[in-house]
Amino acid sequence: MPVDSLGFVLQTMLAVAVLAAGKGTRMKSALPKVLQPLAGATLVERVLASARTLAPERRILIVGHQAERVEAQLNHLDGLEFVLQQPQNGTGHAVQQLIAPLQSFTGELLVLNGDVPLLRAETIEQLVETHRNSGADVTLLTARLNDPTGYGRVFADDDGRVSAIVEHRDCTEEQRRNTLTNAGIYCFNWSKLLAVLPKLSTDNDQGELYLTDTVSMLERAMHVEVADADEVNGINNRRQLAQCETLLQQRLRDHWMDQGVTFVDPASCTLSESCRFGRDVVIEPQTHLRGVCSIGDNCRLGPGSLLEDSELAENVTVLHSVVRGAKVARDVAVGPFANLRPAADIGEGCRIGNFVEVKKSTLAAGTKVNHLSYIGDAELGTDVNVGAGTITANYDGVNKHRTVIGDRSKTGANSVLVAPVTIGADVTIGAGSTITKDVPNGSLALGRAKQWVKEGWNS
Amino acid sequence: MPVDSLGFVLQTMLAVAVLAAGKGTRMKSALPKVLQPLAGATLVERVLASARTLAPERRILIVGHQAERVEAQLNHLDGLEFVLQQPQNGTGHAVQQLIAPLQSFTGELLVLNGDVPLLRAETIEQLVETHRNSGADVTLLTARLNDPTGYGRVFADDDGRVSAIVEHRDCTEEQRRNTLTNAGIYCFNWSKLLAVLPKLSTDNDQGELYLTDTVSMLERAMHVEVADADEVNGINNRRQLAQCETLLQQRLRDHWMDQGVTFVDPASCTLSESCRFGRDVVIEPQTHLRGVCSIGDNCRLGPGSLLEDSELAENVTVLHSVVRGAKVARDVAVGPFANLRPAADIGEGCRIGNFVEVKKSTLAAGTKVNHLSYIGDAELGTDVNVGAGTITANYDGVNKHRTVIGDRSKTGANSVLVAPVTIGADVTIGAGSTITKDVPNGSLALGRAKQWVKEGWNS
Amino acid sequence: MPVDSLGFVLQTMLAVAVLAAGKGTRMKSALPKVLQPLAGATLVERVLASARTLAPERRILIVGHQAERVEAQLNHLDGLEFVLQQPQNGTGHAVQQLIAPLQSFTGELLVLNGDVPLLRAETIEQLVETHRNSGADVTLLTARLNDPTGYGRVFADDDGRVSAIVEHRDCTEEQRRNTLTNAGIYCFNWSKLLAVLPKLSTDNDQGELYLTDTVSMLERAMHVEVADADEVNGINNRRQLAQCETLLQQRLRDHWMDQGVTFVDPASCTLSESCRFGRDVVIEPQTHLRGVCSIGDNCRLGPGSLLEDSELAENVTVLHSVVRGAKVARDVAVGPFANLRPAADIGEGCRIGNFVEVKKSTLAAGTKVNHLSYIGDAELGTDVNVGAGTITANYDGVNKHRTVIGDRSKTGANSVLVAPVTIGADVTIGAGSTITKDVPNGSLALGRAKQWVKEGWNS
Repeated sequence: MPVDSLGFVLQTMLAVAVLAAGKGTRMKSALPKVLQPLAGATLVERVLASARTLAPERRILIVGHQAERVEAQLNHLDGLEFVLQQPQNGTGHAVQQLIAPLQSFTGELLVLNGDVPLLRAETIEQLVETHRNSGADVTLLTARLNDPTGYGRVFADDDGRVSAIVEHRDCTEEQRRNTLTNAGIYCFNWSKLLAVLPKLSTDNDQGELYLTDTVSMLERAMHVEVADADEVNGINNRRQLAQCETLLQQRLRDHWMDQGVTFVDPASCTLSESCRFGRDVVIEPQTHLRGVCSIGDNCRLGPGSLLEDSELAENVTVLHSVVRGAKVARDVAVGPFANLRPAADIGEGCRIGNFVEVKKSTLAAGTKVNHLSYIGDAELGTDVNVGAGTITANYDGVNKHRTVIGDRSKTGANSVLVAPVTIGADVTIGAGSTITKDVPNGSLALGRAKQWVKEGWNS
Repeated sequence: MPVDSLGFVLQTMLAVAVLAAGKGTRMKSALPKVLQPLAGATLVERVLASARTLAPERRILIVGHQAERVEAQLNHLDGLEFVLQQPQNGTGHAVQQLIAPLQSFTGELLVLNGDVPLLRAETIEQLVETHRNSGADVTLLTARLNDPTGYGRVFADDDGRVSAIVEHRDCTEEQRRNTLTNAGIYCFNWSKLLAVLPKLSTDNDQGELYLTDTVSMLERAMHVEVADADEVNGINNRRQLAQCETLLQQRLRDHWMDQGVTFVDPASCTLSESCRFGRDVVIEPQTHLRGVCSIGDNCRLGPGSLLEDSELAENVTVLHSVVRGAKVARDVAVGPFANLRPAADIGEGCRIGNFVEVKKSTLAAGTKVNHLSYIGDAELGTDVNVGAGTITANYDGVNKHRTVIGDRSKTGANSVLVAPVTIGADVTIGAGSTITKDVPNGSLALGRAKQWVKEGWNS
Repeated sequence: MPVDSLGFVLQTMLAVAVLAAGKGTRMKSALPKVLQPLAGATLVERVLASARTLAPERRILIVGHQAERVEAQLNHLDGLEFVLQQPQNGTGHAVQQLIAPLQSFTGELLVLNGDVPLLRAETIEQLVETHRNSGADVTLLTARLNDPTGYGRVFADDDGRVSAIVEHRDCTEEQRRNTLTNAGIYCFNWSKLLAVLPKLSTDNDQGELYLTDTVSMLERAMHVEVADADEVNGINNRRQLAQCETLLQQRLRDHWMDQGVTFVDPASCTLSESCRFGRDVVIEPQTHLRGVCSIGDNCRLGPGSLLEDSELAENVTVLHSVVRGAKVARDVAVGPFANLRPAADIGEGCRIGNFVEVKKSTLAAGTKVNHLSYIGDAELGTDVNVGAGTITANYDGVNKHRTVIGDRSKTGANSVLVAPVTIGADVTIGAGSTITKDVPNGSLALGRAKQWVKEGWNS
């Protein structure tokens, strides 16, 4: 890090530019490439996030293809600037668009690619730090690839000083054996870059301006080799998108295995980065967690389950079920084939059985909804037993109404509670009853016809 | 291609023979090996299909083990001839059975294996074309294998001319290092083959007649090396069957990823060859499409879903559901845990929620069946709201009857519509009602007992 | 095997000691490592089981960390002895704890690791047999590893005689190229070991007593190289636990594929060792079988299904369903989205459809429960038709009661049978009826209100 004559660290400014103008033709998508989702976030958001720990003074997105759509989707991001590249005439041309917006800027320019979403924050920090410590004009990120075919080769000495970058097609046989490749991620001294940027030429096969060409124009070039070459994977088609998803998911699962989560078949599960797990959680095969989830100790999830934006306390089991936007207290068993919907709030020791849907309802401790029921817009007390086939008829075709059931009450099989309605505590509702009026504490309520038998009917 | 003295292309005839007589002992199956299914089609049908683009004049299946069963299952195929090999005394013996049926035939004989199902049409076309262009007596398909142990090695010059085929056990150490192997797929000049075929001998370890032995008896042998060695994978046991399924599925998924379909976890999904996808379809993990499916742009399918012989328009979501033989219009959400059965025809903007089954029914636009319902043999108008627990009682124990519900009508929770019955438009059916008679437009229909409360029952 | 002077085989005694004292810090678990489950059994039970075929006279578990919990969970195992190692000061220290309990023992001591659960019985048998035949003082198990970094290297001659074991950190560059590693599994001549065991020293980096150090103190050391290096995989963290689960599952699936079971996507399925399959069973993707399962010929299971402790006869299909503790006769179709619970006993040719739960009930042949029903504590005759939405109300809030339905009877849609209740044969129960009293044979039973219509309600 640069110091002044008294040894004080000189504060340097950082601008981050993300190349996000490309169309991504090979994605065959109506969506611009950088807006493709990967594990719940767009590619470009992932790239921006990877530079967050550096707290850059400027963050600039170079947009082009479907620029308006990209801007519209990202303009909630504080302080993000958009610069238009029109037409899209290469990476050098893209960075030339920064000359005006960064005219008064001094410091480093970090150039990231909007379709390289797996870079770790640590890697970028190391790139910038190496650049600052070395005092180079440019420091580029390199990767050692098993099969470097097609990539530009980087020639450097043991101190990391780059002597040349040679495109694959221009390499000799000997040079092609070099597996150190240019990842296309750069940290520039902006004023040094500014001096050479206008000199780029389109004198090449594609007729484009290449940012790589600036490296040979600058005096001191360094490189930092990425430890994990997977980090610099670029996405040009859906196969590569799927490969990056696989790598990202593997990172997430490995992280949580190291924290004490068991995955029976890791490769079959997906997580989001906003999931948190306690100890001795067991994730059964084919289970997916998305959005913001918090899973307590000793939970067992799956097989065949989907959880999203939900909070589970300790010792909850979820089997072949869907849980979204729900909150579940400890010692609850859910499923198989249950559907907890947003604002389902399930109390300690409850049981949500098969073919049961709960939505926007509170169940106090010990309540059981074991079979074939719909509980919506309801408030159930403790130790309520909801009979099989019970429905809260919460919708009159126009509005939703609430159902309240008191502690220890029982609803009979195939009963309907027509909301708004309040069932007291210790109430018994007979099987097959449709309840339209409130029922006081301790009562028996019935709403069904007398049984009637005609003998000899089928003989 | 052979030309006459005036330069006109000589039309040559093609006969395709498929070896399908083997028992496949190691499959441990009651089914003959060539009838084992792979991604929805039998092995032998796949092999026959791979030669379809060549439009062969003759297609002959050499059957033996469970010959009648094989014939019975395939005799729907137009113009397919069956030739019996009894007993099964080797590949040479199999092809000897063609001497009589092809006695008046002139042209090429293409010999395929009934248990090598991954050959691409392009590969076979190239084999036949090379054979025709070169004027060889026989052209064989070869594959370069990483581990050629056990396979016959092919020795050939750079022009593709074969000098020898040496079985693994007869190879010198030096010869074993040759990784070019015989795939057992041949294109013969039939009259040349006919001249040597009777000379085959059983003078070998197995006491069988080997077709390979004809190659050294013929003057000019050529080979074509297959680009993708996986194509010549043979199936002798269930592990190899599973490996071929994996390879075939990978081909299908790669194809559709290249066409603009996102797979979140490709390896967990299976497709059939008769599926078609629009752009920006997202296939979530553990989702399977079978039979003839057509999926519109922007659909999102899965996780945990099965679709078969169904047609989905744009922007349909299917979550943890089964959809078979159904037709779904645009902007419909299905699931979780819904079951669309044959002849379910779901209109634009409909909603099919959890624990809902629809069979042989038409739902017009905007209709909602959100929870715990069975809709069978019914016709629902636009914007109908089907209450939770509604059942169309379509079966009287002998016949199925139809239920009709008019536009904008609402059924109450746990109501039963006893078919045949017609509910008009703008009807309200009370919760818990059993409806046995038609209901005119705009009416309220009820069929339930009055609520009755006995206080102090549980106190 | 040792013989006496007359050539009779000398019976030698075998003691098996399992190292099970470690904490397994990197598991980050409240559970001691050896109690972690793998494919339905704890690690230590798997290790003990692998030595079962040797019928050892003594079986000793050396416990330490959470010793009481380990003992409590395993003391149902006949004749298993527990020896406490406190503190845990290395493998040598662990085996020193055997000096007292084995003071009068003569014979071999087999030392196994409680966290190495994939050893095959055949491997251990070969180790002990080689040891006995060679008359060595110690025979150790070795494995050839692709990447031996970190493992002690074993130097031996072609006859299997070990000259030295050198820890990785002490190896020369040359020695590190040796990929033969010490697996930490030993068969000792106990009296020979006893002579050197007290001489172990803590003079090493960790300050622990290492069992390995005894090898150089003994005169004759042999080794047996394991054929499949995966068998000696140790488990120190959850990633390794998951890898071992994958390997174990692959073994199980490969075994059953060789026996004639088709797996469409093997890697997505898990089995237990107590599952048995007939021929031509097809296991669709994402299907799991646990506990003791028996699956008849031609069954098709999955996708997306879970079976546990269940018995299925021939030709049963299970689709997207859960089957636990159930018995299913031949030609039954289950699902999608069905839940068979313990003591569900389903007769030949029955049909269990979507959103159906069956618990502790017997269904005779030909009975159909097609939709949205709960059958609990019931006995159904032959050819019963259970209408959609039928519920057996088996629970009065205190006790469970039985429902009986005679042959050929039909229940209407949304009917409730309030147990205890007996429905005769050939009975028809009207839709929407709540049945509280017994119904004689051949009767029609109804329990519903008359339909009532108010016209003009919505106009």
